[in-house]
Amino acid sequence: MKGKMRCTKCNEKAVISIRSRHRILCEKHFLEYFINTVEQTIRKYSLIKKKDKVLVAVSGGKDSLTLCDVLLKLGYDVSGLYIDLGIERQRYSKESRRKVEKFSSVKGVELNIVDLKKEYGVSVPLLARRSPRSVCSVCGIVKRHEMNRIAFNNNYDVLATGHNLDDEVSVLMSNLLHWNFDLISRQSPRLEGWHPKLSLKVKPLCLLTEKETAMYAITNDIDYMLYDECPFSEGSTSITIKEALNRIEDRSPSTKLYFYTEFLKHRSMFESLHDRSRVSDCEVCGFPTTSKKCAFCRIIERG
Amino acid sequence: MKGKMRCTKCNEKAVISIRSRHRILCEKHFLEYFINTVEQTIRKYSLIKKKDKVLVAVSGGKDSLTLCDVLLKLGYDVSGLYIDLGIERQRYSKESRRKVEKFSSVKGVELNIVDLKKEYGVSVPLLARRSPRSVCSVCGIVKRHEMNRIAFNNNYDVLATGHNLDDEVSVLMSNLLHWNFDLISRQSPRLEGWHPKLSLKVKPLCLLTEKETAMYAITNDIDYMLYDECPFSEGSTSITIKEALNRIEDRSPSTKLYFYTEFLKHRSMFESLHDRSRVSDCEVCGFPTTSKKCAFCRIIERG
Repeated sequence: MKGKMRCTKCNEKAVISIRSRHRILCEKHFLEYFINTVEQTIRKYSLIKKKDKVLVAVSGGKDSLTLCDVLLKLGYDVSGLYIDLGIERQRYSKESRRKVEKFSSVKGVELNIVDLKKEYGVSVPLLARRSPRSVCSVCGIVKRHEMNRIAFNNNYDVLATGHNLDDEVSVLMSNLLHWNFDLISRQSPRLEGWHPKLSLKVKPLCLLTEKETAMYAITNDIDYMLYDECPFSEGSTSITIKEALNRIEDRSPSTKLYFYTEFLKHRSMFESLHDRSRVSDCEVCGFPTTSKKCAFCRIIERG
Repeated sequence: MKGKMRCTKCNEKAVISIRSRHRILCEKHFLEYFINTVEQTIRKYSLIKKKDKVLVAVSGGKDSLTLCDVLLKLGYDVSGLYIDLGIERQRYSKESRRKVEKFSSVKGVELNIVDLKKEYGVSVPLLARRSPRSVCSVCGIVKRHEMNRIAFNNNYDVLATGHNLDDEVSVLMSNLLHWNFDLISRQSPRLEGWHPKLSLKVKPLCLLTEKETAMYAITNDIDYMLYDECPFSEGSTSITIKEALNRIEDRSPSTKLYFYTEFLKHRSMFESLHDRSRVSDCEVCGFPTTSKKCAFCRIIERG
């Protein structure tokens, strides 16, 4: 950001240049733009209703804490959910838990904590060592299951996650590179709970970039995990895809936003191949699965 | 290529490592593999019949000369078509024309030449200066029109171009980034001539990479244009996309091949939106257009 840039709205000193939207904004107008964009996203995709009890999955990173903060500002009834995965490398779980607890106490947000060690006597790295799956795969299963479990048990109406535009675009690209129609058809800012135990899942930051959520967190003095990515994700394909997309965006600003929003308009064409006829309830936890026991319960059993 | 690598087929000194296909090959087995792959591509997608008169569009680059060479080896009835675009920058047209003429005389291939200056008194850079379109857009219109014209006027059965896997994948990615359904649905190794004046168009190198066609040209002593890309394409988005895809391929070998071949299996799902009801014949040249005059004739008129 060049020091001489001026806000295109008020000519004050600018803090950010958003090339994809042809905007250069000062702090005040950036925050206004950011909150408005979240509000519009919620309205456009019918993500949250005013009386909903919202559970926000908070990791301690910039995206989820920013999401929590904005939803509070917009007047929603928000609680947090932190899942302590027991990742000791780089003190990842300890540090991120501390950030989340600090944020919640400052903002007065009710915080649900699932501590895998206390709850199940395991950690994600331990489960991954005992599983043929990758750490990231095990972690995804654990987080999805526990988010669904807490949302269901505590009667939350909607589960919100901090996925930003860069996350969504990189996942979409990866799914297209592999023509994974099942995953493509389910990628949406709003994923209906299609089983009695599954909550509605929403992504209110999906039209805002990583750079924008970081700027929001910084200008709002949110103390977040600076090394955003988990230590296990280093060198992952998703990071390579993000970098590749950043180069394309740099060359052709707004490619990401157009790619994602146009995809959402045409998403239904990918839906034909979806088949839920083989789904039943897990005999241990009751959540949907295509086996007798769900992937989570099998992983925990082995751990 | 490390000097110590050995051919996985015969243990001779290897000349190429093809990670996407888990092969390390010596010169002899590489050429065998390359020619077999072209033959299989032709068979799999029904590209050329043995008695077809084939017109190969040759630019002087490695891909089109390699294509011509392989089709000759496979015993097809091949002629070349060179379009002299009149690009003086970096002596591009002069040099490439010289390469094509040399190749054709050495191989005894009949060569059709369209010289834009002689034929229409213009060059692509001149036409582009007088048009609101970009140089690459004007050039594409001119080349497509002239390829179709020569193929039709000289009764060729099929028009073959040297597009390789990297070209196809980068175009596919670009069309997906823009959700250009019309272009996506028409991207195929075999594009039927859907109008009486349009020939069948085929891409027999579409499953081989840029690296592989370069290696074929080098090991066959084909004298080709070393700076493959036209001087006007420098810094183009397509090159950015190619680089981005190269990084992903480097991280996850065979991504490109899978992305492209799986796309071809599902291509028909993109076809619904195609509409040719508005097409009529150009009043000047008779080729299909959605206006009274086709884009080519309008550009030439202005030039």
